[in-house]
Amino acid sequence: MTMTPEQAAEIAALRSQSQTTRRATVPALEEILYEPLNVLDHGFVRVIDYMGDDSAVVQAARVSYGRGTKKVSEDRGLINYLMRHRHTTPFEMCEIKYHVKLPIFVARQWIRHRTANVNEYSARYSILDNEFYIPAPDQLAAQSSSNRQGRGDVLTGSEAARVLDLLKRDAAQSYASYEEMLNEKPDGSKRDEDREGLARELARMNLTVNFYTQWYWKTDLLNLLHFLSLRADSHAQYEIRVYAEAMLDTVQRWVPACYDAFREYRIGGAALSATAIKAVRRMLAGEQVDQAGSGLSAREWRELMDVLKPQG
Amino acid sequence: MTMTPEQAAEIAALRSQSQTTRRATVPALEEILYEPLNVLDHGFVRVIDYMGDDSAVVQAARVSYGRGTKKVSEDRGLINYLMRHRHTTPFEMCEIKYHVKLPIFVARQWIRHRTANVNEYSARYSILDNEFYIPAPDQLAAQSSSNRQGRGDVLTGSEAARVLDLLKRDAAQSYASYEEMLNEKPDGSKRDEDREGLARELARMNLTVNFYTQWYWKTDLLNLLHFLSLRADSHAQYEIRVYAEAMLDTVQRWVPACYDAFREYRIGGAALSATAIKAVRRMLAGEQVDQAGSGLSAREWRELMDVLKPQG
Amino acid sequence: MTMTPEQAAEIAALRSQSQTTRRATVPALEEILYEPLNVLDHGFVRVIDYMGDDSAVVQAARVSYGRGTKKVSEDRGLINYLMRHRHTTPFEMCEIKYHVKLPIFVARQWIRHRTANVNEYSARYSILDNEFYIPAPDQLAAQSSSNRQGRGDVLTGSEAARVLDLLKRDAAQSYASYEEMLNEKPDGSKRDEDREGLARELARMNLTVNFYTQWYWKTDLLNLLHFLSLRADSHAQYEIRVYAEAMLDTVQRWVPACYDAFREYRIGGAALSATAIKAVRRMLAGEQVDQAGSGLSAREWRELMDVLKPQG
Amino acid sequence: MTMTPEQAAEIAALRSQSQTTRRATVPALEEILYEPLNVLDHGFVRVIDYMGDDSAVVQAARVSYGRGTKKVSEDRGLINYLMRHRHTTPFEMCEIKYHVKLPIFVARQWIRHRTANVNEYSARYSILDNEFYIPAPDQLAAQSSSNRQGRGDVLTGSEAARVLDLLKRDAAQSYASYEEMLNEKPDGSKRDEDREGLARELARMNLTVNFYTQWYWKTDLLNLLHFLSLRADSHAQYEIRVYAEAMLDTVQRWVPACYDAFREYRIGGAALSATAIKAVRRMLAGEQVDQAGSGLSAREWRELMDVLKPQG
Repeated sequence: MTMTPEQAAEIAALRSQSQTTRRATVPALEEILYEPLNVLDHGFVRVIDYMGDDSAVVQAARVSYGRGTKKVSEDRGLINYLMRHRHTTPFEMCEIKYHVKLPIFVARQWIRHRTANVNEYSARYSILDNEFYIPAPDQLAAQSSSNRQGRGDVLTGSEAARVLDLLKRDAAQSYASYEEMLNEKPDGSKRDEDREGLARELARMNLTVNFYTQWYWKTDLLNLLHFLSLRADSHAQYEIRVYAEAMLDTVQRWVPACYDAFREYRIGGAALSATAIKAVRRMLAGEQVDQAGSGLSAREWRELMDVLKPQG
Repeated sequence: MTMTPEQAAEIAALRSQSQTTRRATVPALEEILYEPLNVLDHGFVRVIDYMGDDSAVVQAARVSYGRGTKKVSEDRGLINYLMRHRHTTPFEMCEIKYHVKLPIFVARQWIRHRTANVNEYSARYSILDNEFYIPAPDQLAAQSSSNRQGRGDVLTGSEAARVLDLLKRDAAQSYASYEEMLNEKPDGSKRDEDREGLARELARMNLTVNFYTQWYWKTDLLNLLHFLSLRADSHAQYEIRVYAEAMLDTVQRWVPACYDAFREYRIGGAALSATAIKAVRRMLAGEQVDQAGSGLSAREWRELMDVLKPQG
Repeated sequence: MTMTPEQAAEIAALRSQSQTTRRATVPALEEILYEPLNVLDHGFVRVIDYMGDDSAVVQAARVSYGRGTKKVSEDRGLINYLMRHRHTTPFEMCEIKYHVKLPIFVARQWIRHRTANVNEYSARYSILDNEFYIPAPDQLAAQSSSNRQGRGDVLTGSEAARVLDLLKRDAAQSYASYEEMLNEKPDGSKRDEDREGLARELARMNLTVNFYTQWYWKTDLLNLLHFLSLRADSHAQYEIRVYAEAMLDTVQRWVPACYDAFREYRIGGAALSATAIKAVRRMLAGEQVDQAGSGLSAREWRELMDVLKPQG
Repeated sequence: MTMTPEQAAEIAALRSQSQTTRRATVPALEEILYEPLNVLDHGFVRVIDYMGDDSAVVQAARVSYGRGTKKVSEDRGLINYLMRHRHTTPFEMCEIKYHVKLPIFVARQWIRHRTANVNEYSARYSILDNEFYIPAPDQLAAQSSSNRQGRGDVLTGSEAARVLDLLKRDAAQSYASYEEMLNEKPDGSKRDEDREGLARELARMNLTVNFYTQWYWKTDLLNLLHFLSLRADSHAQYEIRVYAEAMLDTVQRWVPACYDAFREYRIGGAALSATAIKAVRRMLAGEQVDQAGSGLSAREWRELMDVLKPQG
């Protein structure tokens, strides 16, 4: 992550302040409030603000006058019940706001989740920094031969070196042209007095999608968990998955009971189709069932076996 | 408003607590946090939680690392600019949660605003209290003769008395039947041991829509202001307008700069049509313009005159 | 269902018209277009319009220039894949619009699904008809003793008779008072010239929530399937489930491949928790597993057994 | 616009088909159905499907059993009334679906409108074409000196030539490296047998944001008009405005009465602030009002003068 001393000082200033509030407060999350959690080579996720805690879910489910909580075990039981039966609205009663710095191509995937509030840094209005994402060597993966949208083995040797060279060279050239076209110094004055300088909203079109952008992103707990269930999944692209994983840690700090229920019923759970259920019933009745006899496609059978196989 | 001593004690307990937080905090709103603000004969609005303040709008608009605020006058200027030019996303960065007690027919209007999170008290699961709305005498209005969905003069004398009698009689009978069909005492035991008792989810169908329900309702500042611009408007039905007015006061405490911008550019402003603008231009050029010559319908002309007429 | 001759004639007129279009068209759905499908004692669902078909899902998934379809088996395979892996956006590319007549208490559950477009008949503007829902004798259920929001046995004998009497008496009285307070004849003139008549927006508060309302309701296929998965479920209240079931039939006519995938992967499928998966793995390995040893609660164990038990 | 003969043939095939339907149908829109409307150097907008017409708005507002229309003048009057008083829900009853080809930086602005359904061509799954946007000479604008996010004069001479050179050179190099890293021929075989080829989801990060992407985009009329009011506005960036303008023409064909109301009350209208209204009242009363005395900022005063000044 790259941050100027001024930015670090702004964050430190925020972290040094404290106020008194009657609101539900979560010390474990306050600990890391405003702090950048590093992701990829220049990115980060920072929790900027939050509303509610585990009790707020319980309180809303009970439409209570006070905090609404009873014994911890009863509250956990209620949260588990809500998660299991997809009674979703109480999870919408908690809200969190992040500041995220991320490559443009990651931002393009992320923004597809529509039930969130977003304010992005504007390259019509301001000049983007010279920061772009270059994969670490162990993430320089070949195209998967079995999955059209997946990764295969890691590239090595001269191919890996060549790819890194191309990525770095093109991003650097891209930015150099951007600067030249803008014709603007950091203080806003012209670099070359004889030229006008291209409009910012046009010059930006020359940047590659591995350049970093940043935004404020705010959502409720239900939609956050939905986002994380898709983006922390093994099928998600690595470059967005690492953001999701950093955010999962913030969820664990924030609402530990909801987090546990989420692991039990979503992340760690599995959905079986009608045909898969029939196959499992037959297996439990002692029948030998194979793919052909199961009625499942080869791919579905493999997915079912992944669910049912004993774990090392 | 009707509240049991237990409910009052739960609220008092919440209000007596205080925590330390690094989050943006608004003392003027903390003052009334959790407190019921009375509305109609048995209803209320309570602020349960909030996220952000005026600075959070500024911070998001600037995608800043720290609080993002500069001088108060610059921040106000930015907020005014955002409001005027309908740059809406920064206003989504503040969030507020209310607990509301309201008649069912008001809830039915309210719920049409979809961009909010809601948890309502469930009459499938629990038994509704014997509380229904009866208009105060000065709100017992006749049908407007000019506006199909508006109110005319206040009813008086025997007609008013008869209406109040009918409303009270029918609501009371409605609830008496509800209780009889449920056959359930407050402690859950049967009233009449020889009967089963009708399912709660069925028995509730006998209640009139002036019975009170309650919910947790959470939304962001942008959508709250949109809700208030429609429901605090003079064309809104009185019974929902009084809720909107109570909530406007909470907005003023919470985000005073946004509130002022909202009054200046929304509540106190006006939208002119293309034809109305042409008429105003001609008037300013010294021309005498009347409705017939303006190209506006009689109704639009009246609306324009309301905007342009000198205020006493 | 109650419909005036004028309304029936309007529907017949619409059904008798036909136009030529280049759009994707579904003859099986056209057959029932505009026709009311009866639900409950006075309600209905009518398909008013639709956009897209099974191919539209395929077309969007492939971002194709033409219809996008290949062989029927490939298209079905793609739809199954999308449904199984929750690639949801292609299902948003089909849209349907219904006209629904339903009791207010059903409308109150229904409206909680926010991702739809709604226009409801306005009782501020117009007068509601004298139509209310009375359960059929086999739906007059007692409160369930095991499930706080469920139904138990059907009431019989004098208790059933008494409940029906109360429901009918109170609704009738409710409406009689409504009419008296309105003081308005069908032609808009006054019933009693000496009285004003209460404003419509106030008089309606005297109606019980089993009175019928109606609305236009439009949504995309994804959100419709989500609605149906919750409301056609056995845990849904009977009075909304019958609407969902009528709508399921329209989905089968409209997008048969999506419908089949929905039955296979949603309605007929099941979600297992992390702990349930572990239990199933042990069972398949030949171990005897009981509830205590499974780590599941009694209720979760019962739900798992319901999934795994051999079907008669 | 660039289109392969296969794509052109697919479109021609769709256009040559016709079906019979009972649905509301709009001949003027059918005329251009599926046809690409060229935008920028390689982009287009195509109407793929639609639901409803002007009557559908009227029908929903009246919750009618038939088409709901009365005399044309009454229907237009109702549509004007709904638009003027922001009774928005009836406009949600019409739906339209577009296929759009657009530069990535335009797609990034566009996607901020969340109330739409989107399926984008996936560069994780497929390979992007070698097509990028280069501004026409008359759009090669300098940065505005007065507006931080606007354009000034058009660049000329050697500066213009240099900018075009840089844009073309960098995009071309960007794509050449993309192809080299992918190491994939159009038929999917390897270009260089000795190399693996970088995963598509990684290689794409090297493309500049002026490369073209494409998507299916579907929305309702209300949200479409909101999108167009912002993106067809003179403050919108030229490269998205030309898409909005092409779409405005499709709206005029589709729902001419709504389109006229939109021009009268939105596009051609203006919003006045509370302070601006006061100033206009004083002017109309014959007072000389200048900026200082008006209470408006210099910028707001200028905006007001733009509204009020006589039009050439």
